[in-house]
Amino acid sequence: MSDEIKSAPVLWTGDHYNEGIGRDDIFDKLREECGVFGVFGHPDAAGLSYYGLHALQHRGEESAGICTVDSKDGGKFNYFRDMGLVKEVFTKDRLDVLSGDRSIGHVRYSTSGESQLNNAQPLIFRYRDGDLAVATNGNIVNAPEIRRELEMSGSIFQTSSDTEVIAHLIARSSKDFVTAAKEALQRIVGGFAFLIMTNDKLLVASDPHGLRPLAMGRLGDSYVFSSETCAFETIGAEYVRDVQPGELLILDESGLQVDRYATIERRATCAMEYIYFARPDSDINGINIHSARKRMGQQLAIESFMDADIVTGVPDSSISAAIGYAEQTGIPYELGLIKNKYTGRTFIQPSQELREKGVKMKLSAVRKVVEGKRVVMIDDSIVRGTTSRRIVNLLREAGATEVHVRITSPPFKNPCYYGIDTPDRKELIASFRTVEEICKEINADSLAFLSDEGFVDSVGGNEGAYNRGMCLACFDNDYPTPVNEESDKSCSC
Amino acid sequence: MSDEIKSAPVLWTGDHYNEGIGRDDIFDKLREECGVFGVFGHPDAAGLSYYGLHALQHRGEESAGICTVDSKDGGKFNYFRDMGLVKEVFTKDRLDVLSGDRSIGHVRYSTSGESQLNNAQPLIFRYRDGDLAVATNGNIVNAPEIRRELEMSGSIFQTSSDTEVIAHLIARSSKDFVTAAKEALQRIVGGFAFLIMTNDKLLVASDPHGLRPLAMGRLGDSYVFSSETCAFETIGAEYVRDVQPGELLILDESGLQVDRYATIERRATCAMEYIYFARPDSDINGINIHSARKRMGQQLAIESFMDADIVTGVPDSSISAAIGYAEQTGIPYELGLIKNKYTGRTFIQPSQELREKGVKMKLSAVRKVVEGKRVVMIDDSIVRGTTSRRIVNLLREAGATEVHVRITSPPFKNPCYYGIDTPDRKELIASFRTVEEICKEINADSLAFLSDEGFVDSVGGNEGAYNRGMCLACFDNDYPTPVNEESDKSCSC
Amino acid sequence: MSDEIKSAPVLWTGDHYNEGIGRDDIFDKLREECGVFGVFGHPDAAGLSYYGLHALQHRGEESAGICTVDSKDGGKFNYFRDMGLVKEVFTKDRLDVLSGDRSIGHVRYSTSGESQLNNAQPLIFRYRDGDLAVATNGNIVNAPEIRRELEMSGSIFQTSSDTEVIAHLIARSSKDFVTAAKEALQRIVGGFAFLIMTNDKLLVASDPHGLRPLAMGRLGDSYVFSSETCAFETIGAEYVRDVQPGELLILDESGLQVDRYATIERRATCAMEYIYFARPDSDINGINIHSARKRMGQQLAIESFMDADIVTGVPDSSISAAIGYAEQTGIPYELGLIKNKYTGRTFIQPSQELREKGVKMKLSAVRKVVEGKRVVMIDDSIVRGTTSRRIVNLLREAGATEVHVRITSPPFKNPCYYGIDTPDRKELIASFRTVEEICKEINADSLAFLSDEGFVDSVGGNEGAYNRGMCLACFDNDYPTPVNEESDKSCSC
Amino acid sequence: MSDEIKSAPVLWTGDHYNEGIGRDDIFDKLREECGVFGVFGHPDAAGLSYYGLHALQHRGEESAGICTVDSKDGGKFNYFRDMGLVKEVFTKDRLDVLSGDRSIGHVRYSTSGESQLNNAQPLIFRYRDGDLAVATNGNIVNAPEIRRELEMSGSIFQTSSDTEVIAHLIARSSKDFVTAAKEALQRIVGGFAFLIMTNDKLLVASDPHGLRPLAMGRLGDSYVFSSETCAFETIGAEYVRDVQPGELLILDESGLQVDRYATIERRATCAMEYIYFARPDSDINGINIHSARKRMGQQLAIESFMDADIVTGVPDSSISAAIGYAEQTGIPYELGLIKNKYTGRTFIQPSQELREKGVKMKLSAVRKVVEGKRVVMIDDSIVRGTTSRRIVNLLREAGATEVHVRITSPPFKNPCYYGIDTPDRKELIASFRTVEEICKEINADSLAFLSDEGFVDSVGGNEGAYNRGMCLACFDNDYPTPVNEESDKSCSC
Repeated sequence: MSDEIKSAPVLWTGDHYNEGIGRDDIFDKLREECGVFGVFGHPDAAGLSYYGLHALQHRGEESAGICTVDSKDGGKFNYFRDMGLVKEVFTKDRLDVLSGDRSIGHVRYSTSGESQLNNAQPLIFRYRDGDLAVATNGNIVNAPEIRRELEMSGSIFQTSSDTEVIAHLIARSSKDFVTAAKEALQRIVGGFAFLIMTNDKLLVASDPHGLRPLAMGRLGDSYVFSSETCAFETIGAEYVRDVQPGELLILDESGLQVDRYATIERRATCAMEYIYFARPDSDINGINIHSARKRMGQQLAIESFMDADIVTGVPDSSISAAIGYAEQTGIPYELGLIKNKYTGRTFIQPSQELREKGVKMKLSAVRKVVEGKRVVMIDDSIVRGTTSRRIVNLLREAGATEVHVRITSPPFKNPCYYGIDTPDRKELIASFRTVEEICKEINADSLAFLSDEGFVDSVGGNEGAYNRGMCLACFDNDYPTPVNEESDKSCSC
Repeated sequence: MSDEIKSAPVLWTGDHYNEGIGRDDIFDKLREECGVFGVFGHPDAAGLSYYGLHALQHRGEESAGICTVDSKDGGKFNYFRDMGLVKEVFTKDRLDVLSGDRSIGHVRYSTSGESQLNNAQPLIFRYRDGDLAVATNGNIVNAPEIRRELEMSGSIFQTSSDTEVIAHLIARSSKDFVTAAKEALQRIVGGFAFLIMTNDKLLVASDPHGLRPLAMGRLGDSYVFSSETCAFETIGAEYVRDVQPGELLILDESGLQVDRYATIERRATCAMEYIYFARPDSDINGINIHSARKRMGQQLAIESFMDADIVTGVPDSSISAAIGYAEQTGIPYELGLIKNKYTGRTFIQPSQELREKGVKMKLSAVRKVVEGKRVVMIDDSIVRGTTSRRIVNLLREAGATEVHVRITSPPFKNPCYYGIDTPDRKELIASFRTVEEICKEINADSLAFLSDEGFVDSVGGNEGAYNRGMCLACFDNDYPTPVNEESDKSCSC
Repeated sequence: MSDEIKSAPVLWTGDHYNEGIGRDDIFDKLREECGVFGVFGHPDAAGLSYYGLHALQHRGEESAGICTVDSKDGGKFNYFRDMGLVKEVFTKDRLDVLSGDRSIGHVRYSTSGESQLNNAQPLIFRYRDGDLAVATNGNIVNAPEIRRELEMSGSIFQTSSDTEVIAHLIARSSKDFVTAAKEALQRIVGGFAFLIMTNDKLLVASDPHGLRPLAMGRLGDSYVFSSETCAFETIGAEYVRDVQPGELLILDESGLQVDRYATIERRATCAMEYIYFARPDSDINGINIHSARKRMGQQLAIESFMDADIVTGVPDSSISAAIGYAEQTGIPYELGLIKNKYTGRTFIQPSQELREKGVKMKLSAVRKVVEGKRVVMIDDSIVRGTTSRRIVNLLREAGATEVHVRITSPPFKNPCYYGIDTPDRKELIASFRTVEEICKEINADSLAFLSDEGFVDSVGGNEGAYNRGMCLACFDNDYPTPVNEESDKSCSC
Repeated sequence: MSDEIKSAPVLWTGDHYNEGIGRDDIFDKLREECGVFGVFGHPDAAGLSYYGLHALQHRGEESAGICTVDSKDGGKFNYFRDMGLVKEVFTKDRLDVLSGDRSIGHVRYSTSGESQLNNAQPLIFRYRDGDLAVATNGNIVNAPEIRRELEMSGSIFQTSSDTEVIAHLIARSSKDFVTAAKEALQRIVGGFAFLIMTNDKLLVASDPHGLRPLAMGRLGDSYVFSSETCAFETIGAEYVRDVQPGELLILDESGLQVDRYATIERRATCAMEYIYFARPDSDINGINIHSARKRMGQQLAIESFMDADIVTGVPDSSISAAIGYAEQTGIPYELGLIKNKYTGRTFIQPSQELREKGVKMKLSAVRKVVEGKRVVMIDDSIVRGTTSRRIVNLLREAGATEVHVRITSPPFKNPCYYGIDTPDRKELIASFRTVEEICKEINADSLAFLSDEGFVDSVGGNEGAYNRGMCLACFDNDYPTPVNEESDKSCSC
């Protein structure tokens, strides 16, 4: 597909660099895959979306967009989207023009090589019955087939985003809009949360296994929808419930109507949301993320206790677990690693010479804290192993005498097809190395992963459900939908 | 259609203001309607396009875009487009990424209410056979019907630009690409210059009457195409010939192939290109614009001589004609009106108070030159009459004792359907007022327009052709294609 | 004094808002007061300064500047400074132009109403012997008198910064540069760290009581100087020692010469650096900040234990102390409050309506964690009390049944004259309210401050020194230099 | 002196390129040297200054600044200045903050190597009696001596601008402000127009020979001052008179007081203002610039008539003269050369390859107009000769059979010390080549300059005055003040 140049090509290189602690790390960190936020029935839908998307910023730092509909003005669409953080994309002037009482918004991470402005969501289309806006979090496994089929019958696409297929499927149908949308949702396979808006309706849908999180809240008389509940706290809304697998919520002038387009088979919420992606103050399926992570740390202490002088966590995602490990063991939690909070997309990369001399832009070890100490270092996952090796070495260079690595998840062995940007299986170190080999490769004194059972019980909830209602495919290769190695892995959003 | 907010909404208000000499004038000036520039076979296609589009900047100041294809890299597409001038949109970094030896580029004016980034061209599509890029200057009269027809059979549109229909027509065809393109061109009616690029071909087409200018040039072994020949001088290319009405040029690895999709009926090049739109250093159909305008001024002196102390022209388009009038009559040409060359999109509007006090941002009369003088003021056209009245008043306030207005075109009475943004007929002052009434309304001492014959002969060339091969519909209501008052007037580009 | 408009006036309003959790809070948080960073003898002095200043960014987010000297190019000065973060002010292009092997750099917070670009440091002057650049952290108590005296004898000032007096004092002297600098340093009274650079020398000085931190490091053959040691870790430099009170280090082509301009009387390092300002991974006088804060939390648990269900800290400065409290008491540390890491200067303020509805931009309570819980909330200080009340209320609104506030410092009763932006005494709540009254005012169930002794011992080090070598004037009114209520409080940098 | 990096170093390189038609030309064009604009007694002083400075933009495109004083608010100063055009430097937000009823403003050209933000004017100082702002156009010949003297007695300078000496001289005086200012003006030698503002006064002064233009106007009850009268027309003000040599106007709450600090010796207004710098719609000493230039062209036709097919002028400054030549001779004026109005500071330079292939960014010859023609080309001056040669060659490459160059000024042989950026004498081609030699060097068929007498009479006015009150030193080496080859030539502003 064609490459539209991103807004500021030079800067985005810096971005990638900053994602890890070195250039190689750009492929060694799982990438969060978009967040969606919807409003129905609030006079300042755009304002709410701005603060809501800001709370979801960690799910996508590359682009942001909001589309509003003014139900008092004949359902007129207004929208804006651009590359950048929410606070960069939306100035006061731009927000003021986005009048309307309904809206869908989106923040997006790019997958490699596809940093394209015209992939920024919400995507906007004009079809037979008017305007159509779509915002997605997740991935459609069978999008390439559907897309090819549509192209062969004369459809043209303007984005490389698979989200565009849902609009085409709806436009091609001769049925009424809601029926067309249901049939379109039934055609697609994958893990996704959809917000679809027309001049007179807002549709909210979750995939049949509830792979990607999506919650409903209320703010006075209005409804709000968000990938994570943390956005509700930010805007002062009240959490109502999670959108259920296979559900289709239809909101229009007659209010909220709860429908389904698929029967619920097996709930399979993405485990990595609990481990790494979601904000610690969010709840998914009623489970608070921080608390779940703390329990993972405690469980690690039970499963693979290692005595040491201090426990430290890799910021930010593993702090909660490190505190859990410390509480469980009585080993003091210390700030052995620190992240510079000011780094970001526009940072200048150090020259090769300065990097070799030890210039660190993002993560440093705290010498005074780790020097002469045996350290238990908690991290959330090991993808290729390069980041872990670097962090272990940072600790050693700062004087740690021993570094014992404890991972709050089982070994990551299998690629994700549901919206997480993972490398190919052959690059996932746990798919071809034993724990001992990995330990050696990352230069640790010992290494342990959380067991599948330990992990599942740490998260808790959903008593009796298979894997407590989570998808553990990246650990156990048990995918809730048909996939094969050729299936589309790239995020649809 | 939905409104995407333009990049910098506040600023563009200022833009409109600056188009004339006062806010009311935003509707009282014809708007130029886009320029296209193509390259085939040059290793720095993007660089050439940058300088070529810069030379066409006067044809569209709102947005700019370039799409390149690298024939050595499997026909990969690269593109960038944004709101702003060519020099603002393309930084060195962005240009460097646009590698390739083929390209199409575009500069665009907006029509009211449609300042949308996603209408910026070239438009890029993905269809069955790969990528497709389209850049247009002009208008498709029957686009709304075709669009409706396509929507009813399930097509979705991402822009409000009618140019999108040509891509859909091509994608829907089951024939080979060139045949599909020819059939698509045969379906559409209007005045247009098209550049269409795929992964392996560049197509260049002019409408069956040659309404919009399009010229071919050579630079070494490469071909270049431009809305105006001034771009050839800028890049050091040699002018070859104008693209002929109904012609379809096909460029691919086997070179240039000249074809047609329509028989030539009646050449009807837009008269306003000669009068107002084109740069004075351009040639259309072999006629230099500056020289044509000078002859219009001379002809005005012959048809409606008025003695006076000085002759002055409204900058920039009427300077050549004013000099022609002065040469013909012996009345000295003087700089009675001056335009500030630094005004532009980002200028802050004067407050109401300052405007009332006389703050002028763009055009001033030169008191020392006009004070106590009888002035012949040459202008190119009168649309609603408001701008003319203001300029006449500027001269009077600066002390002119008499102001005689001479217009280098016949009265503008009929809207254009071929890519010029004109108001409705009922707002065109010449359609409902006599010359005497207009003279009174614009506060002039005398007023004369050029006759149809005088105008046609001033331009010259094309001996024997009807109206010397020009469309004079805006003056004589004789449209070269079927149109009716409901036909689409808005520019397709 | 005159007001130069800051670069982007509208945006900075947002900045202030973001400093706290509401608009009122802009006066309820101590402001960090600048950081300095110097390099001597490294070929990429500007590059090192960029990463060094980035590590000191928390000490000043308003403006940044770097001045370099190229000792190989006759001591030529190059400099750049602007409003904004280090990463915003310095692009690659700008950094590349700052050639040289010596440099001084600065990050700066503004004091209210003085957001002026021309106060951005380093300040650059031209005097009799060439160029002079000065970067300061701290405040000169007697600057107004000296300034008035200089003005009366004909000096003109270009900034409102008191730092300018040091340059005038040096320029007015008829002695050699080093002697002039020593005499100038002897004239001024206050708390400060100075970096002074000429075409051939770099001077480094700390005030006679060592009020503001300043450390020396080595990177290969070059010397580096930094307000905090965290910058050394970032650039891979080795910590050597803290610059001593009254010391004057002179660096030139003959190397480093250690001198003094004042006898050391009483070391009095600012206590608030340990409590609030410094980064947790920095060491001051050999004490790690994180560890000191953790001990403060432990000491709080000893001095004023309160049983509860969870302990939480106000991010970011009080997290370490909260963990200390938790470790000491066995009460679990939980993430009860969370800060959005993406907020910053350019954020749009919520409308009055949205704020009333509960939109929170920066700090939220985590409902799932605090609901139904008795909470011990650790914070670093109470200035006016408004911020504390808001945070307590956030916790209560999220369902906390009890909120017990523990402060890691003694009551803040007296203004600082040494470079911290504090309100007048009459606005410091602890100066006119009892602990019980404050407890009521901030709506807490209980409130306790750390005792002076407890605080001093938590920091530790400096056995036998008065207050272990710290200035506690803001708590105990015992200022190490003469001051009176009329003395200049505003930061000199 | 030290070099502060300009705002956007990369872009300014482009700027230089664009000044001429090729990179070499950056030294072959005289640079205009600043413009000043003052307001006294208008409630929107900043707004007027914005439009006034915009009208003076051609006098300085590098930086712009405005300082206002609010006489109702105790004479408080507000100011802003930055690199860029007036419309770029001042946004609506920034202008709104500049409240006040008095103001001085400035636009500035840089001289090579001194593109410094802190040289942007107005310069602002704080001295014994309050605030002081200074804006200058011109140069102080003896500034280096005064500066050295001030430095030796302890003064420090923050800019490399000589304008700073006037502030020091005032601040050093023990007399009242007006007396101090008069004595300071008496100390300095050169050509300058000064606007000096304090908290309660505005001073306006012209040098003793009136070398630089400065005019006074009225707008209702307020006074306005401008380097050129064109700004009065723009803001709707009425021209009153030119400020006289040696005059000092003092404006304060008691109104306007006319004083002098020097007796008028010989009026010597800069000849190049008439020839090249001033806008054609400005009047200096009552002479309209366009009219004067037209007379220069007519005089050229009389002095050195050459028959030809067409006359053309080098845009923009020589158009008026070319029309004069055409009117005098009856040879038709034609648009043989055209300048792209969109070029500007941010333009990307063509690559070496594209430049060799003929890419022209700014100036092109119009082939259709000049092909096969004998051309008289009118230009204003020849500095080094490189630009002239390029333009002659452009015409030849476009097919001109003969190119006869006529220059509207005498040969430029001597450097200027009064504010025009000229190269050293040894680089001025007319100082070491005969007219025949220059003709050959620029590849012309014939070349003629205007005679001194012819030039002087073309300008006219000032009957009986020596050189009709103009300085012709650059032509005749007769400087109105003492100068020597070592005198400071660089512009003080």
